[in-house]
Amino acid sequence: MNGGPYVSVVGSGTATRELYEQAREVGRLVAERGATIVCGGRSGVMEAAARGATEARGVAIGVLPDEDRERANEYLSYSVATGTGHARNLAVVCSGDVVISVGGEYGTLSEIGLALKVGRPVVALESWDLGEHVVVASSPRAAVEAAFSALGM
Amino acid sequence: MNGGPYVSVVGSGTATRELYEQAREVGRLVAERGATIVCGGRSGVMEAAARGATEARGVAIGVLPDEDRERANEYLSYSVATGTGHARNLAVVCSGDVVISVGGEYGTLSEIGLALKVGRPVVALESWDLGEHVVVASSPRAAVEAAFSALGM
Amino acid sequence: MNGGPYVSVVGSGTATRELYEQAREVGRLVAERGATIVCGGRSGVMEAAARGATEARGVAIGVLPDEDRERANEYLSYSVATGTGHARNLAVVCSGDVVISVGGEYGTLSEIGLALKVGRPVVALESWDLGEHVVVASSPRAAVEAAFSALGM
Amino acid sequence: MNGGPYVSVVGSGTATRELYEQAREVGRLVAERGATIVCGGRSGVMEAAARGATEARGVAIGVLPDEDRERANEYLSYSVATGTGHARNLAVVCSGDVVISVGGEYGTLSEIGLALKVGRPVVALESWDLGEHVVVASSPRAAVEAAFSALGM
Repeated sequence: MNGGPYVSVVGSGTATRELYEQAREVGRLVAERGATIVCGGRSGVMEAAARGATEARGVAIGVLPDEDRERANEYLSYSVATGTGHARNLAVVCSGDVVISVGGEYGTLSEIGLALKVGRPVVALESWDLGEHVVVASSPRAAVEAAFSALGM
Repeated sequence: MNGGPYVSVVGSGTATRELYEQAREVGRLVAERGATIVCGGRSGVMEAAARGATEARGVAIGVLPDEDRERANEYLSYSVATGTGHARNLAVVCSGDVVISVGGEYGTLSEIGLALKVGRPVVALESWDLGEHVVVASSPRAAVEAAFSALGM
Repeated sequence: MNGGPYVSVVGSGTATRELYEQAREVGRLVAERGATIVCGGRSGVMEAAARGATEARGVAIGVLPDEDRERANEYLSYSVATGTGHARNLAVVCSGDVVISVGGEYGTLSEIGLALKVGRPVVALESWDLGEHVVVASSPRAAVEAAFSALGM
Repeated sequence: MNGGPYVSVVGSGTATRELYEQAREVGRLVAERGATIVCGGRSGVMEAAARGATEARGVAIGVLPDEDRERANEYLSYSVATGTGHARNLAVVCSGDVVISVGGEYGTLSEIGLALKVGRPVVALESWDLGEHVVVASSPRAAVEAAFSALGM
């Protein structure tokens, strides 16, 4: 109930075509397994994950830093405008039962830190190398497998 | 697109039976007109609005103050866990194109202030008397009419 | 210890000359009684309260909505940049043992609501009329008296 | 003016004696160079940095996650209660012109990510190994030197 399980996908607002396609596949695979995607609601990896999910008839929730939806990507099923800037990163990771990090720059690093702080397992795909603290995956499929495995599913 | 229009319903976490039923009817009427309910995700007026919306086959999004969903009510379609305490009040009102205040105590007062600050019209039902700054409605139906009217719908 | 007691002064970022002088006197009187001023760190009433405090050799802490100090007023002893937009209103009121509201528009209304929500007494000077929920004062001196009285001092 | 320059010290709420002493020395050296310490206001590394600063007659500002000061350490000159939980990590780093990370667990990782996101240089002492993204220092003195060097001082 309540829309779950939820998988948060975190990553940069700009993405290479390759990374974009990987995030899109993550979104699609998560949706095919019946979970809801949560993301930061903007462009790049966030857009790709939402796009993959909704293209597979799944649901994607965007959690925006802004006070309105002007910069939301067009693939979100629903969105929330937090008005709290980068503090919305905390909301993105708290809203996931597990977090998949795809690529990513500094904002993504903060999201990994916050996710671990609040006890969410983190799966990293082409992302920050943080040793044992995250599960490193070598493909979108492996990342989604690892995420659901972390949820005991 | 993007799940809208969005109507945020704000009100206290405890509600008399009468107020609960009014908020429930607000949720139902908003859903029947095709809009999405946003609320604070917990009990009382928040629960009632979500319940009314989902009983009418609409969608209700809960924006929780907590780091997890443990205290979410059972009528939410989807929820976001912000982890920012009362600062989530800002997210609740930013996420609505219009805000309906049902009853309400101090948290609700803060939400009305924040809503007006970020330029959202506020409709008040059995709520704080703030003169010309809000539209006072005398029934759930009048409140929903006023809300959609404020949206030009 | 720890810099207290703390008196938060909330009010609009634009102020008439009269309101500015009232807020400045509030800041001065609070400082003369040995308490620290907390404010939102920007212009108008926030600036006036900080100015009054530091002109009286007191201390004023500004809690800014921005990610940096570019828009801080010049009278702050110290400041914090929260990066969370209007959610910093919560920090302003949580940081006061008591809150004095001087004039004020919608943001101020939200601060009064948040202050009451977290259990801080609120003294209103030329501010929102909220009946028994706040202590109405008729002058800066009366406001400061009421604030210290609420603290049992 | 305005209390700066500001050096934010981030690190875990629990610290070994060795790490505690290192953070304390960082605080002392920063204060001796006339800058203000900002920290998370609680125990461990946060307490040690504040202690070092105030023992050297400097100023330490604590930015607390809580709605009140109950869990503030006793060495803070002043403190702010944000009420926003881990979202206060953003405020801690935004409030520094430069950030020194001492040891640290997941919360610290998030603070490094947020600091880099908002463009603050990060100096790491016995902390997360993030390659070229941070300046690694081998002693408290080297860390403080690197921090002031990053500020062009």
